[in-house]
Amino acid sequence: MKVNFKNFLIGLFGFFWILTATIASALAADPLASWNDGKAKQSILEFVEKVTRPDSPDFVPLAERIATFDNDGTLWSEQPMYFQLFFALDRVKALAPQHPEWKNQEPFASLLQGNVKQALAGGEKAILEIVMVTHAGMTTEQFEQIVRDWIATARHPKTGKLYTEMVYQPMLELLKYLRSNDFKTFIVSGGGIEFMRPWTEKVYGIPPEQVVGSSIKTKFEMRDDGPVLVRLPEINFIDDKEGKPVGINSHIGRRPLAAFGNSDGDLQMIQWTTAGPRAHFGLIVHHTDSEREWAYDRQSHIGRLDKALVEARAKGWTIVDMKNDWKVIYPPAK
Amino acid sequence: MKVNFKNFLIGLFGFFWILTATIASALAADPLASWNDGKAKQSILEFVEKVTRPDSPDFVPLAERIATFDNDGTLWSEQPMYFQLFFALDRVKALAPQHPEWKNQEPFASLLQGNVKQALAGGEKAILEIVMVTHAGMTTEQFEQIVRDWIATARHPKTGKLYTEMVYQPMLELLKYLRSNDFKTFIVSGGGIEFMRPWTEKVYGIPPEQVVGSSIKTKFEMRDDGPVLVRLPEINFIDDKEGKPVGINSHIGRRPLAAFGNSDGDLQMIQWTTAGPRAHFGLIVHHTDSEREWAYDRQSHIGRLDKALVEARAKGWTIVDMKNDWKVIYPPAK
Repeated sequence: MKVNFKNFLIGLFGFFWILTATIASALAADPLASWNDGKAKQSILEFVEKVTRPDSPDFVPLAERIATFDNDGTLWSEQPMYFQLFFALDRVKALAPQHPEWKNQEPFASLLQGNVKQALAGGEKAILEIVMVTHAGMTTEQFEQIVRDWIATARHPKTGKLYTEMVYQPMLELLKYLRSNDFKTFIVSGGGIEFMRPWTEKVYGIPPEQVVGSSIKTKFEMRDDGPVLVRLPEINFIDDKEGKPVGINSHIGRRPLAAFGNSDGDLQMIQWTTAGPRAHFGLIVHHTDSEREWAYDRQSHIGRLDKALVEARAKGWTIVDMKNDWKVIYPPAK
Repeated sequence: MKVNFKNFLIGLFGFFWILTATIASALAADPLASWNDGKAKQSILEFVEKVTRPDSPDFVPLAERIATFDNDGTLWSEQPMYFQLFFALDRVKALAPQHPEWKNQEPFASLLQGNVKQALAGGEKAILEIVMVTHAGMTTEQFEQIVRDWIATARHPKTGKLYTEMVYQPMLELLKYLRSNDFKTFIVSGGGIEFMRPWTEKVYGIPPEQVVGSSIKTKFEMRDDGPVLVRLPEINFIDDKEGKPVGINSHIGRRPLAAFGNSDGDLQMIQWTTAGPRAHFGLIVHHTDSEREWAYDRQSHIGRLDKALVEARAKGWTIVDMKNDWKVIYPPAK
């Protein structure tokens, strides 16, 4: 077979042209498909373009593209109470047979009678007691297995969904979009670090080493069958409010470029992030959708959004109006 | 121009064949060129092959390939005292004009008279005092700049080298080799986390978020010109001995596959790493080269290697005989 080499070359170039165009078109498919067109979506796209376009004056090298996400109320729902508290209450019930004394001891007595409100009336002290008896006293590996078993089966009392099905589809797209632009995505949550790590990789694509959270102390012990880390009933670190920049500094060691939250607990994280010398981005998810999710802000005991909303408006941080900015809340049922 | 298409194709395939062969050959170039052939080098190559070959029964998925490295004595030298202590002493001298009271106050008085031995005679308490006055009382950003300035200029009293020139060339190759096999490499050091982070990325290719170390507490403060993190004169965490598995669990959240150390301070890290259910690897750098570096183990006050050497032999961990296993110690002068 003979062929005109020039024509062959033209054909070859044509092939690559089509290939390139196809790839470009695939890349151009809307990465935030569950976001309605509007200011929130536009601000995200503009920020990412600004820090990633090589000839942009705000270009940021790959290694420094760090984005931090609160979890409760930012990546998944948090009403009518933090999902980790549902976990703790289920654990109290599971452990009750080994603790006959709980029948006459608050907050456990009320809890076991099904009166959650009464049990939590003891405030922070009651919650701390519940967390300690359910989160400490076992090895890290045992706790991980307990969380895995619970998260695979427990269902939300209102929606009947698995808790991991109550993650926000628009935020899953945002995480993926940032990673496709070479951002390293971290969770920085007031929730327990070891409560999140067993499932964040599968659900959010965020590996354990990129999860920052509150923690209790652990202790290395050499046992007959080998070394273990034992979880102690003692607070190590509270990763909330002023604690979030501290946790970020401790775990990440550099200032994020972008931070995403939904409550006053995220205020200092966003302040810290947006105080950097480079281009930066702060975003608040405002829960405005009482129909598809929940609507709450200033008056809520869970995820109160008050000061951070005022500051977001004053500083021009992006505010997501959940009802109007999100086409869907949760991922489609599988 | 006309050309026989079949011949053209053959030529094209030939070109790709040569290209492929060239790449393969480049990849086959010895990744551990500064290691002498011997048991230590062989054991590293065999371990990596075992966990990375797709059809190996010990194959480990990419995300779980975590390797942890001690720093002092494992990645760089640590004699005649930890390099961070040289930093602290230099800072005492720099700060002395602002502290006239130090002239009559130990350990500072002896230090300022050049009598380091006398100053450190106060043991841990004296060292802690020196560390606190030199490492706390400024913002995290100010401290980072102080470290950057020092590490760029300070020189080792014996070798006259920059401290970052006293890193081990064979270990640099090992870090690179592991990363080229999709390992994520972490530092897990008794040294200060914020003393290491400003330079580990450039020197070791290890980014700040993959550095675990000892730390003092920090505090978020909103100042007139924005938020800062202030370094407090209070120990937060000691990442040594039993602390290393705790630090690994806190920062990484999964058990390493391989751990590299040189002293009893690394014993628990290697115990923890090698107790995992999968293939694992533990390595001890034994300082045996009094000519090119230093020779010390059981009797040394810095980097004592006693129990970990006994256990390494009993458990079959790899022991690097620095004198015989390493062709060179430090990278060639630039």
